[in-house]
This record gives sequence, structure tokens and C-alpha cells, in this order.
Amino acid sequence: MNALIIPVILCGGSGTRLWPASREKNPKQFLKLAGPDSLLQETIKRALKITGGAAEKLVIVTHESQEDLVKEQLAEINIQNPEHILCEPHARNTAAAIALATKYVADHFGDDTYLWVLPSDHFVGNEEELEKACSLAVEAASKGHLVTFGIKPTRPETGYGYILQGPALTNPMVHKVDKFVEKPDLKTAQSYLELGTYLWNSGMFLFMAESALSQFKEHSPAILSQVVDSMRGSEQGQILPDLYKAIQAEPFDKAVMEKSSEVAVVPCDPEWSDIGSWQSLWELLPKDENGNVIEGQAVCADVQNSLIKTKGRLIAVAGLENIVVIDTGDALLIADKNNGAAIKEVVTNLKKQDR
Amino acid sequence: MNALIIPVILCGGSGTRLWPASREKNPKQFLKLAGPDSLLQETIKRALKITGGAAEKLVIVTHESQEDLVKEQLAEINIQNPEHILCEPHARNTAAAIALATKYVADHFGDDTYLWVLPSDHFVGNEEELEKACSLAVEAASKGHLVTFGIKPTRPETGYGYILQGPALTNPMVHKVDKFVEKPDLKTAQSYLELGTYLWNSGMFLFMAESALSQFKEHSPAILSQVVDSMRGSEQGQILPDLYKAIQAEPFDKAVMEKSSEVAVVPCDPEWSDIGSWQSLWELLPKDENGNVIEGQAVCADVQNSLIKTKGRLIAVAGLENIVVIDTGDALLIADKNNGAAIKEVVTNLKKQDR
Repeated sequence: MNALIIPVILCGGSGTRLWPASREKNPKQFLKLAGPDSLLQETIKRALKITGGAAEKLVIVTHESQEDLVKEQLAEINIQNPEHILCEPHARNTAAAIALATKYVADHFGDDTYLWVLPSDHFVGNEEELEKACSLAVEAASKGHLVTFGIKPTRPETGYGYILQGPALTNPMVHKVDKFVEKPDLKTAQSYLELGTYLWNSGMFLFMAESALSQFKEHSPAILSQVVDSMRGSEQGQILPDLYKAIQAEPFDKAVMEKSSEVAVVPCDPEWSDIGSWQSLWELLPKDENGNVIEGQAVCADVQNSLIKTKGRLIAVAGLENIVVIDTGDALLIADKNNGAAIKEVVTNLKKQDR
Repeated sequence: MNALIIPVILCGGSGTRLWPASREKNPKQFLKLAGPDSLLQETIKRALKITGGAAEKLVIVTHESQEDLVKEQLAEINIQNPEHILCEPHARNTAAAIALATKYVADHFGDDTYLWVLPSDHFVGNEEELEKACSLAVEAASKGHLVTFGIKPTRPETGYGYILQGPALTNPMVHKVDKFVEKPDLKTAQSYLELGTYLWNSGMFLFMAESALSQFKEHSPAILSQVVDSMRGSEQGQILPDLYKAIQAEPFDKAVMEKSSEVAVVPCDPEWSDIGSWQSLWELLPKDENGNVIEGQAVCADVQNSLIKTKGRLIAVAGLENIVVIDTGDALLIADKNNGAAIKEVVTNLKKQDR
């Protein structure tokens, strides 16, 4: 690609959906879940490869408490002294983070620069497919569109928001967006899957800086102006904490995309996963002849379709299937891999007990 | 009871059926599985209570490598400086151990003393019932019988040997033994359960010293004479290792009971268990409203009929039933509680790998 595309990595998450591997102080994007690199490292490598960009033009938005961890992980993939790490003093959801990155990119690289906004904690199995989608998105963005990437659903997922694609634009592979819809119930999700025109909202976006700034001004002017005010702290991207804290915490989808008439969607199937559960991690990892994914020392007898991760200690597992065992040394989860509700409940109970 | 009854505790076991709680160096009888006392301690307290005997008349047969552990556990229940710990230099199964104890008791307390031989790693829920059976056994033993305790079966167990009871002797609660039978298959075990005349062979025995010595002489003279020879080492019960090592390792049932015409059985139901599996431990422990037995720090969601034991570390369990989780700090077992075959397989595999 010839246009200047800046990958903007959103690295502010602090979820515990993969507890006990992910913790508030070591969230999912920093974990080496699906290979030797962390999800953050894989995201960066993939983005630089697809955009053909140099690491000097990478922008990362993170919380200031995670700056050191980000730098460590960048160093591990040979990115030393990164120039453009934007540290939020408070987490204010994606609208503020994207406004911040957009204004920063416009100031440093010019209004006509493209931003490819990427969550740092997702998995992509098919890079070529994502590269094709990115090309289509740049083409649409060059005409002023804010482009979102719609993943073709493979199951009636109730954990994601959906995008209803509208008619094709000039390029038949790029569509208008009819509407964004909230997480559906199972029946509705099944109908979406059958219809084939509903796509998962992946949280990836591509647009030109000036297009996004103009849409922010039109639909969420307060967020943009507060972000701009907070950036007066320093040339080095330091942000004034009190001003930033006052910004309304809103997702970019709600603040801009759902309100804008300039939105487009590129349907694609890059074998994407948000790895929102142990079940989804198990699905994308290579399995042995019993359908098991085993990391660390584990001896099994009559165990099938299970995910077992342990550090150091010996684990013996017998007579079970569809089980997840995650042993981090200080904590241990043992669960029915397919019972997401029970896993969520136990982690919620743990949080209540402040552990 | 007025007769002098010496409890003889067989404490030589080194099994790993409750791995990872039991290890070769810390076998089941030393574990505090079903309360604040170990199975050994409970066995001793129960035996002294029922026989009304003093701790000075307690005899324990153990392997010399376990002598210190035995003394520690005796001290914990306020038995200091036990006089009659017989240390085997080599494990030679129960015929040799019982011959040793019998000769020792005859020498120290007289030929007409009763021995109540008790495995150290079994559970008894109903002491009164055992006490009644013991009285009946003493009465029969006073007439020269070697008495065994036959447990009324409550399930078609394939893991135990059985005793077919014959006609009643003078006391209608005491029977001749028609035959001893090996561990049956499930179909045979089911027919035994229906017939009601087959009893589990509990491994408890009661007899007068002179009766047992006489039956040893008749049916297994070599074992007895070798045991007697090996005891010439010392007044303090030290045994000559080379002589003892040469003794044939045979169960007392096979060496004497199955061959003797002087055998009797007292059928009884003292809520006995050999705790041969995690399933059987779970059965006899008190459960919470979800049917769970939880020891240590565990947070559960949607967990039923499970046994969870942990030391120190936090365990979270979600969406599972009939599971056993045993975390000893250095090892961890996670298994289907009811799948004994798989548990056995995984422990066998561990042993093969020399862990």
C-alpha cells in the first residue's frame, strides 16, 4: 500500500475474562496465549507487515500504569524507544482514546494520514484475508468514509454487537451500514446467522484523520474538544489528568459510528477471534489426537477436548472431557469449558471477595 | 470385656490409592482424611475404647522406615514411649506380620491372651456395632475359633474378597465360614448382594494366641518357624533382617484362614469403609447443600457432589459435578470421582514416569 497508514493499537484493556491467566495488572493483551508472542505483539507485527509501515510510525494508546509493560513487550519484538506511546491518565473508553490518537496523528503526520485502529487483544488466523480487507478499507476511507471491519459470523454468538450491512458502495466488496445492533439473545443471533447480512462488530476501524475529526466535531464535539484541551500538557504526548478524567467514557461506536452517515463496512473472514473465553482459545489452538490442548506438565488418562495449562507443578487429570484447567501457580481454575456462565459467576464471586 | 484383649494394629501399608494425598513415604493410614485424627490414630483410639485396654498393651506392627512416623502419631494422641512397636525390616504381607504379633503376644502376655488384629487404614462409622461384634468374636475365640469380621455388603463391590457364611455356631450371631472367595466380577458381586449370605472380608481378625499359633503350625509351619527364628535377634523385638526377608510373603487369609477348620465369622455392619478411593472418602464425609465436600480455600459456582481438598492456594471450580480435586501443593489430581479406572490409570502412568 502506498498511502501512509498508521496502525493505532488500543492497549488499554484491563479485563479478567481469562482469569486466572489474565489479571487486572496483567490483562489479556500481554499474555502469550496462542504462540511465542503476546496478543499485543502479534497485533503489532501483523499491522506493520500489512501496512508495510515502519515501527517509528506505530501509535499505541495505553493506560499510564501499563506503559512499562508495553515498552517491555515492544523491546521483545525489537522495537526500541517507541516514539508514539500515548498514555491515558484515566481509562475513558474508546471514543476518547480514538479522538486522542486521531488528533495526535493529524498533528504529527498530517490531516490526510490514515489511521488503522486495532484492539490489542484479538486473534487473527488469516492475515491475507485481513490485508485484502485493509486495502478495501483504505480505498473507501480515501472517499471520506469511516470504515469498520465486519466479521462474517460462524455461530450464533450472543456476546458480540452486530452490524447490518446495507447496499454496496462503488466497490461491491464494501457496503453502507444499515445499522449497528446490540448483543442479541440466542434466538435473534440464530436469525442473524441465517440471514447472512449481519456481521460481527470487530472493533477495528480505518479512516483518514480529517474524516474522523470532522465526524467527532459533528456528533461528539465535547469529547473531541476535551481531548484536545487535555493534550495541551506537553509536546511529548503527556495528558492533563484532571481534564482527561472529566471526559465522558463512551465507546467510539456509540459516540461516532452509530450517528455518522459516512460509515462503511468491509465484510471479511480473517479467522478472527476476540478470545473472550477459554472455550474460544481452545478452539483456535492446535490439538492432540484426543482433542486436548496441553501446556506444561500434565499426565492424562481418558481426557478429551480439554484445555490444560500449568506452570511447573505436576497435574494429573483423569476421566474428564470439555474441561479447562488453568494453573498459574498462585491460583487455579477448574471448569466446564463450555459453561461460560458458571466461569463468569465464579470469577465475579472471587472479585466480590476481593481476591 | 474382662478377658485380656490386645489390639494388634497392622500399620505396614504403603499404597498410593489415594494419590496425591497418599504417597509411598506417607501412606493412607497416616493421613487425617476423615477428621482431626489420622486413620491410624482413630483405629487405635477405637480399639482401646472397645477393649477397655490401656495403651501399654497396644501392639503395632510396622515397617522400620515408618517407626518414627508411628511414634509421632502416637504422641499426638498422648501415647508416649509405646512399648510394643514391632518393626519389620522387610514387608512380608499379613501372614508374617500376624505370626510375629501372635508369638510376641504369647511370649509377653501369655498363650491365652486374645489378639484383635486391625488394619490401620480403615474407617468405622458405628463403634457400638463394632463393639458388639467384638464381644461375639471373643466368645467364639474362647472356644478356639479364629474369628473374622464379615461386613454386610451395601453395594455390588468388585474390589473386595468375600466370605460365604455357613451355619450358625452355638451363638446364632456367629457363623461357620463356608468359603473365602476372591474379588468377583460385577455380575457375581450383584448375585452375592442379592443372596445376603456373602460378606465383605474386612481384614479384621480376633483369636486367642494359642489358637492362631496352633493353626499356623498346622497350615503354614514354615512361616511361623521362620518368624520365630528371626525374633531371636533381641529382647526388644528387633528382628533379624536376613531371616525375615526369606519368609514367604502371603496374606494371612491364604496362609491360615482359608485352610483352617477352626474359622468363624461375625456378620456385622459397623459402617465400615476401607477408603480405597476418593469416591468412598466422599461418601463417608459430611456434605454441604450441594453435596460437596470442600476442605481449604475453594470458590465454586454450579458445582455438585464433588470432593475438593486444597492447601493454601486458591481454587476456583465452575460448572462441574462428581469431580475430585486434590491439591497437595506439589501435585494436583483432577478427576471424575466415579471413574476409578481412569484414576488408577493416571497414577500408574505417573509411577512409570517415576514421579
